Amino acid sequence: MGATPEKGKQKHLVVFQPSGRRGYIDEGKTIKQASRELGEELEGICGEKATCGKCKVSIQSGFFARYGIESRMENLSPIEDSERKFFTKRQELDGYRLACVARIYGDVLVFVPEESRAGKQIVRKSITERAIELKPAVRKYYVELVPAALEDPRGDWERLQAELNSRFDLGQLIIDYQVLLGLQKVIRQGDWKVTVSVWMDREVIKVEPGLVPRGYGLAVDIDTTTVAGYLCDLTSDEVVATDAMMNPQVIYGEDVMTRITYAISKEDGLQSMNRAIVKGVNQMAGRVALQAGIKRRGILDLTVVGNTCMHHLFLSIDPQYLGRAPFPPSIHHSLDIKARDLGLKICPGAYVHVLPIEAGFVGADNVGLLIAEEPHKQDEMVLAIDIGTNGELVLGNREKLVSCSCATGPAFEGAHLKYGMRAVPGAIEKVEIDPDTKEVRFKVIGNAEWSTDLEAVAAKGICGSGIIDAIAQMFKAGILQRNGRLNTDLETPRLRVTGDGPKFVIAWADETSISQDIVICQDDVAAVQLAKGAMYAGAKLLMRRLAVDRLDKVILAGAFGTYIDKESAATIGLFPDCALENIYAVGNAAGDGARIALLNVDGRREASEVAREVEYIELTLESDFQRQFAQAMYLPHMKDTFPQLKHLLPKKVTG
Amino acid sequence: MGATPEKGKQKHLVVFQPSGRRGYIDEGKTIKQASRELGEELEGICGEKATCGKCKVSIQSGFFARYGIESRMENLSPIEDSERKFFTKRQELDGYRLACVARIYGDVLVFVPEESRAGKQIVRKSITERAIELKPAVRKYYVELVPAALEDPRGDWERLQAELNSRFDLGQLIIDYQVLLGLQKVIRQGDWKVTVSVWMDREVIKVEPGLVPRGYGLAVDIDTTTVAGYLCDLTSDEVVATDAMMNPQVIYGEDVMTRITYAISKEDGLQSMNRAIVKGVNQMAGRVALQAGIKRRGILDLTVVGNTCMHHLFLSIDPQYLGRAPFPPSIHHSLDIKARDLGLKICPGAYVHVLPIEAGFVGADNVGLLIAEEPHKQDEMVLAIDIGTNGELVLGNREKLVSCSCATGPAFEGAHLKYGMRAVPGAIEKVEIDPDTKEVRFKVIGNAEWSTDLEAVAAKGICGSGIIDAIAQMFKAGILQRNGRLNTDLETPRLRVTGDGPKFVIAWADETSISQDIVICQDDVAAVQLAKGAMYAGAKLLMRRLAVDRLDKVILAGAFGTYIDKESAATIGLFPDCALENIYAVGNAAGDGARIALLNVDGRREASEVAREVEYIELTLESDFQRQFAQAMYLPHMKDTFPQLKHLLPKKVTG
Repeated sequence: MGATPEKGKQKHLVVFQPSGRRGYIDEGKTIKQASRELGEELEGICGEKATCGKCKVSIQSGFFARYGIESRMENLSPIEDSERKFFTKRQELDGYRLACVARIYGDVLVFVPEESRAGKQIVRKSITERAIELKPAVRKYYVELVPAALEDPRGDWERLQAELNSRFDLGQLIIDYQVLLGLQKVIRQGDWKVTVSVWMDREVIKVEPGLVPRGYGLAVDIDTTTVAGYLCDLTSDEVVATDAMMNPQVIYGEDVMTRITYAISKEDGLQSMNRAIVKGVNQMAGRVALQAGIKRRGILDLTVVGNTCMHHLFLSIDPQYLGRAPFPPSIHHSLDIKARDLGLKICPGAYVHVLPIEAGFVGADNVGLLIAEEPHKQDEMVLAIDIGTNGELVLGNREKLVSCSCATGPAFEGAHLKYGMRAVPGAIEKVEIDPDTKEVRFKVIGNAEWSTDLEAVAAKGICGSGIIDAIAQMFKAGILQRNGRLNTDLETPRLRVTGDGPKFVIAWADETSISQDIVICQDDVAAVQLAKGAMYAGAKLLMRRLAVDRLDKVILAGAFGTYIDKESAATIGLFPDCALENIYAVGNAAGDGARIALLNVDGRREASEVAREVEYIELTLESDFQRQFAQAMYLPHMKDTFPQLKHLLPKKVTG
Repeated sequence: MGATPEKGKQKHLVVFQPSGRRGYIDEGKTIKQASRELGEELEGICGEKATCGKCKVSIQSGFFARYGIESRMENLSPIEDSERKFFTKRQELDGYRLACVARIYGDVLVFVPEESRAGKQIVRKSITERAIELKPAVRKYYVELVPAALEDPRGDWERLQAELNSRFDLGQLIIDYQVLLGLQKVIRQGDWKVTVSVWMDREVIKVEPGLVPRGYGLAVDIDTTTVAGYLCDLTSDEVVATDAMMNPQVIYGEDVMTRITYAISKEDGLQSMNRAIVKGVNQMAGRVALQAGIKRRGILDLTVVGNTCMHHLFLSIDPQYLGRAPFPPSIHHSLDIKARDLGLKICPGAYVHVLPIEAGFVGADNVGLLIAEEPHKQDEMVLAIDIGTNGELVLGNREKLVSCSCATGPAFEGAHLKYGMRAVPGAIEKVEIDPDTKEVRFKVIGNAEWSTDLEAVAAKGICGSGIIDAIAQMFKAGILQRNGRLNTDLETPRLRVTGDGPKFVIAWADETSISQDIVICQDDVAAVQLAKGAMYAGAKLLMRRLAVDRLDKVILAGAFGTYIDKESAATIGLFPDCALENIYAVGNAAGDGARIALLNVDGRREASEVAREVEYIELTLESDFQRQFAQAMYLPHMKDTFPQLKHLLPKKVTG
């Protein structure tokens, strides 16, 4: 991506985060110009006249070893008054600039905040339709009180408590201290008629004047790369608003290990990452509340799932011990913590329920998957794969469950590939290649049909599901060999061998909006091989642990679980042999688990029970992990056979 | 007190707080000089050379209607560099000055902070010896853990929890969120050996590395005028340190009604008063911790008693509804609130237990008295009187308890009397008058004997117990008539009639350190009559409610309960007839109650039960309160007879 610096011309390295796009840009160009050259999509509606303020970016200061870059504010033209009016004081301190104003005079690492990313409105963490029995932790009760009188000198709280007990059989209630502070006023505002929100039939967490029947809760899935939120009506099971965003911690590291390193090596590293995610969840809560037409403080309950590292960072717990043997987390159990103690700006008396974690990096997100998919209640041998920056696998049935985690890198999320991008409009999400002609058809997000119609959205890059399709199709068409090498003997203009290795053209420049050919290069294939190899090896070692040699069912979950083509996934060998009809893509099951825990307290109990039962396998300690991993890098595998998938695979593989 | 301004000379009104001493002072004099003229005692050891910094005072700004004073910093000479070095930034903002430097050029209200008050080291809120069964809410447990290993990947908390459960049968424990945040570090600091503090066998509130056997708790009694604290060892029942201070809220009003008015009329009135008491309790916690040689954060439990208004202000609950019919409090029940949520800087995970309140102004202090004295477990008809700025009475036995409260004003605490002062060295605490010669003997705090020896501490004023003695003795000697008027017909140089009414000299100028005669004037007598009349009327109305006509036992409790002479109290008619041997002075029973609740959880339960059982009588609504009050203003009463106290009273009364 981008060009390497040419002699005689002053160029500087520019890296955009969280996309990871980078390249060398001529001195004096604006960040906005750089973004166009590198395929980074920034908002902006004023034609770069510094009048709309939509292209805000934040310059990260310091030395970033990952990119070999010393990024400094001084590497840009000085801030101008025309920019300042768009920034808060805080933003100015955080190094905010307008991309259309700031000119490049040195290397810079540019963070693009959620609101400045073009295409942000389409999010692919959609919800799965699930029937969830309604049994929420927070319930609302309306009561009419007898006003205080000289003959009845009870305190306001005792009056309310007695009424709740006699009308709704809520004995032994306590009241949140902050709610108590406002109780007198609310009771009198409501003319002695109030609506009370009670948590777990135990504690009053909110009192509102008059009758306020509806109550809302937010289920949040904090993945390493993305965060998804589902605002639910607690009195129906309706999802009233959804939202997703990049995890704002990505600027501190793209995977769990780099974030742990950041927490260890920087004095306030943990605090910075904690503040970032808390702020992010607060902003998300604000957005879903706005969508639903309620106040953020009207969110009465919040559940959280996430892998162990995300869990620790969200709770502001030092993750350093997660990073080295014997990898003990601080806590496994679920937690109920006051929203205000976590800095969350929902209803201040509300509790945040953090689902329990398993072990290692197999966290509450995987517990969410378990209570959503319930392999522990099935007879079949189920392999559940949660595909994200960090892959998590669970294998088992009602007898026993084992789990492991593997570092897959962000390839499946479209990041760090030559033309990789997130699953937003303009991304190629499906690919078909004719095995004979090697001609390519593709579908772009934003278009209903497979089309290259001029009216349609043009391609800008390729997202996770698109890359899996492309690799699978290239393999089936003989463009890729079993070891992942591009077959340079083929006679097709789409295959191109240049100084930096062979490439295969998926989209010609005139089919794109970036006026460049969109290609898959050898490095892109290798990134996918590494990711899928780790997954496959993990699955194999789990099967060995349970002494099983076949899978009855495979569940694909995670950020792009809904969008992945299961045939393509099977073709590249993401998991061992399984009949195609028994492979299910279930979307964001972790988020579904958070939603189940939000709407049903039995789900919380089940989560705690199942989390305790799962046995965790530390892959890197297994005797022949390296050998298994190396074999699994092959397409679909170096040695294993796939009798149930025979019809999908090239003959020479299945033979 | 002090002189009224004379013509031709520029004088300014100076008021000292919390004593209430005031007077007109010549322009240009220092505050220290003013303090001497008005009998206010300020610290200072450098001879007013601005080198010891001990005479710090704080100038209150604004208009204070109570004193008719517009107090401003500009009414003093400008602050000098010699002063500044003694102040923190915060103190400078709070209007701090050195009294020996600041000169008076206008009216000022001067607050004398605790540390600048001379004689502060002697505090009369002493503790009563009580055997308290040790059953504290917070217990400490020492455990040695098996370090984490690959074969045992439990979380740190689960490891600790399992060990506490197996060793001490502590199932279902939870852990404070803040403690969880530090758990990993503490466990490793202690090399997997830790001491755990557990609250109510339910929640871990602190974890310390290694073995730390001792634990401490603080019992706090917040009275309208004074605050007392007792630091107790939770592993023995030893009181390891005590402290007392003026309630820092006195600058906002001297009794509960003026504080309620302040909360209503000032926008941040409630917040100011809450901050003042929280800061005061924090400072007190710091002082007792220092005495005991521990850290303030080592205080693991804290119990609080106080009247309803003090209770509300401590909790930052708006007291406005307490001030008008039907006077409902916000809450009666006891509360357990995290110290950090209240802004208390003891162990951050600790809970503060606030004892339950009864009704009206009969608060947790009275509940403290009840669990300390246990009238609800007795057959005798007991009248318990808690004497403070606000008087609280409970009458009854195991059958039934009734209570009431009455505004007594601060006379019993030595405030707002012509030569009144707190019970500190130099205060006359006992008085005897020869009925024939009308000659006076008195005892001064700081001296072991009744003495006017030149070596002894000279008198500076008269405190609460001294004034009650004086009134009783003057009455018995015929110097006071039954209606409280000074008998001006007597032939004694101690009786002096001047333009502002008659006075009786208790100490001659040469027996004092203030070179003035210490006198009791007609207004002083009236203040005591009002206070004791309210108490007596309250007791009568409680007796009427229970339909009893005699008392078996009278308990005198409160700030000066230990020091009051029960004969004198009976002589002036503080309560209805009762045999002298059945009158007990028990000291600070409210504080004892706080100590019982600190050391014994059954005491907390008993407090909740007894608080619910007491019936509260609103005196001002009783049909003939005014008539009862008027009759009770007489010495000892207009109509009632005192057959059991016959031997104490002048013949014409008992006849």
